[in-house]
Amino acid sequence: MSSTANNNQDRSNLIPFSSRLREGRALALDVWTIYNALNLPPDCINLGQGYMNFAPPKWITEAAEQALNSVAPNHYSHPRGRIRLREAIKNFYDPLFNRSLNVDSEILITSGANEGMYSVLTAFLEQGDEVILFEPFFDQYLPSVTFNGGKPVYVPLHPPASHIKKPTSDDWTIDMDELRRAVTPRTKIIIVNTPHNPVGKVFTRKELQGIANIAEEFNLLVMSDEVYDSLVFDNKEHVRMANLPGMWDRTVTVGSAGKAFAATGWRIGWLIGPKNLIQPTLAATTRIVFCSVSPLQEAAAAGLEQANQRNFFQIQRNEYTERRTVLTDVFDKLGLRYTLPEGSYFILLDISNVEFPEDYPFPESVMGRGRDFRACWFMAMEIGVSSIPVSEFYCEEHANLGEAYARFAFCKDVDNLKAAAERFQKIKKYIK
Amino acid sequence: MSSTANNNQDRSNLIPFSSRLREGRALALDVWTIYNALNLPPDCINLGQGYMNFAPPKWITEAAEQALNSVAPNHYSHPRGRIRLREAIKNFYDPLFNRSLNVDSEILITSGANEGMYSVLTAFLEQGDEVILFEPFFDQYLPSVTFNGGKPVYVPLHPPASHIKKPTSDDWTIDMDELRRAVTPRTKIIIVNTPHNPVGKVFTRKELQGIANIAEEFNLLVMSDEVYDSLVFDNKEHVRMANLPGMWDRTVTVGSAGKAFAATGWRIGWLIGPKNLIQPTLAATTRIVFCSVSPLQEAAAAGLEQANQRNFFQIQRNEYTERRTVLTDVFDKLGLRYTLPEGSYFILLDISNVEFPEDYPFPESVMGRGRDFRACWFMAMEIGVSSIPVSEFYCEEHANLGEAYARFAFCKDVDNLKAAAERFQKIKKYIK
Repeated sequence: MSSTANNNQDRSNLIPFSSRLREGRALALDVWTIYNALNLPPDCINLGQGYMNFAPPKWITEAAEQALNSVAPNHYSHPRGRIRLREAIKNFYDPLFNRSLNVDSEILITSGANEGMYSVLTAFLEQGDEVILFEPFFDQYLPSVTFNGGKPVYVPLHPPASHIKKPTSDDWTIDMDELRRAVTPRTKIIIVNTPHNPVGKVFTRKELQGIANIAEEFNLLVMSDEVYDSLVFDNKEHVRMANLPGMWDRTVTVGSAGKAFAATGWRIGWLIGPKNLIQPTLAATTRIVFCSVSPLQEAAAAGLEQANQRNFFQIQRNEYTERRTVLTDVFDKLGLRYTLPEGSYFILLDISNVEFPEDYPFPESVMGRGRDFRACWFMAMEIGVSSIPVSEFYCEEHANLGEAYARFAFCKDVDNLKAAAERFQKIKKYIK
Repeated sequence: MSSTANNNQDRSNLIPFSSRLREGRALALDVWTIYNALNLPPDCINLGQGYMNFAPPKWITEAAEQALNSVAPNHYSHPRGRIRLREAIKNFYDPLFNRSLNVDSEILITSGANEGMYSVLTAFLEQGDEVILFEPFFDQYLPSVTFNGGKPVYVPLHPPASHIKKPTSDDWTIDMDELRRAVTPRTKIIIVNTPHNPVGKVFTRKELQGIANIAEEFNLLVMSDEVYDSLVFDNKEHVRMANLPGMWDRTVTVGSAGKAFAATGWRIGWLIGPKNLIQPTLAATTRIVFCSVSPLQEAAAAGLEQANQRNFFQIQRNEYTERRTVLTDVFDKLGLRYTLPEGSYFILLDISNVEFPEDYPFPESVMGRGRDFRACWFMAMEIGVSSIPVSEFYCEEHANLGEAYARFAFCKDVDNLKAAAERFQKIKKYIK
């Protein structure tokens, strides 16, 4: 036996890493790092990454404190999740799914929605299986698919036609024929995201039915990422994929305590679906993380237990509607074109007419990427408000489709957003 | 396109799960479920699963409460982990590794040690790469290897020779020639676990040097699971694999806040190693969980910041030594043979002479498994103390090697252990 088993004897990379890291952009410098507050001026207002600049509700953190002062909630949970949280999810979602969820086989707690979705892919993908993603897509989907041996296949959400001066997220559309053409004998999963990040689109019943028809025809699993389900505005109806006729049996619905309760660092998500989808996913998550954080499961349970009696989600929707208005008002006044989001907490601003000098001192990390990477950097430096370039939410081949947009998160307090709005006045001189 | 792409049209398994779940026992009913308190009599004393029946120290949970009452520590951490915890790890471990750890490239926070180890395997394994495990092994290693396309290869820890009437964990030995013969051109990783679960063995410098020599000769990565590093007794020296000459460059050391601070449900672990091993692992964990639970990272940081000045680990070791003695005293009095553990919080009891009626009403879950599954069930029901059968820590082919042992966890308060000791008197009538 000789050490030639490994060819790479370079000391700087003594042990070669897995080739799976070469796929799915896993080693690329991600936008979250490039546009991290640490890389931007200290006084830049951060509307980039989608986390709140406010804390979770006091009555929820108090439940966490109570758990920390007990014994069992500081120790391993059952890999399915703590029974109190599973019961709370059942009681909250039973009316929404119009069924009696089984807490032992149809509800699974995961270490954030992200790990939950990763586990679904671990549980169901064979090497070479194809997963359909609608572009733009939440960037984590891509490496989650490729790490588990899957192959992403892209179907575009078409941007609003240029003649629409005041588009809403409803003006981003899918073409069912394009979706159908994307299906091959290797297709296994379709990932749906409603409300959608970064577009804010709340898929209509008709759109979801079109996707459902194809899922049924070709026996596909649908992973329905509905982590923004509590953030739907303007009385728009949030239709759940699992509620469409016949779809319960093939749909895993994804939820998130972080989005629901302004606690993105708590890493508590949940999956709801039929036993035949949840049980294999339990086997996957049990081996990946063993179990999820116990004391904060108790707190998330308190959140769901009390949300309805406190009218929490309606009040929160009103707050987010006000936050959204702060930004849309200034965009309107400045004559900027944007997509009015019907859900989630993101606004896509059309930046195609924002001009910047090409010889601006851009860092290397944004060079050679889409025009939007440079525009977002320029706006962060010159306007003092950070955002995320939307080409990151497209595959490399289609990145140019996203270049016209910057994503602004409005999960920030009104004062913060008003300060950002004030700064936006400066953009006028860069509009061609 | 027809729906024949999927052959399995059985409604009970509409969407076939991944073949990776058929490997590595991923779908088997695990021991943690079989011997879960829920399946045992309510008054059974639980010395099965290794979690504490006491809470983390108050001064640590208070730090968690403080974090919950702030804003940022409730939101996404950097995927590397919160800087306060990485600084605390650096300050605590710098003297132990006798080097100045780089907080940006040599320390990574993970969602429990379990997810950290999973991420190392995701980052480094190619399909078909081999990973060497010493048997008995912590059962999660096996599916973590197979889910990531790896192939486990087993090297036994040889049990104490039968003439040793009072063995210690040091009497479990490895044969370096067996290890050498297990290496093939596909070997990529050796997993070392010191202090060892379930044996309690603290590997000697000589043993670790033998493993290190082979790792160097064949250019292997060593994942050194040292989550019980704070629980080493009798002034035994805990030797760190990464400290052996030349080994830093190829070793990832695994640590755990759950084991260190009696908080197994907090899901905070850490990896320490050179940049060339930590950076690819960061790419993996970022996609698997994105980041780890933020407020409890602050609390774990407080734990490491104050541990030395409070003499916390020495006091805790004294407490665990007392706990261990409660069990070993009763085993000695009853003339039972066991392995005295020099580290971790497990004692292996030799149950080969515990007799039980073969027609005892055993549940189906323990039938067809090793004799120890039945013995542990019988003892839980008749003695009223639960334990874990050790054959679970062996691969299927070698499960018979573990049948002679039951694992008792002593991470319980002294009163609980004394009550268990009292019940053990009853075992006399079942000893042949």
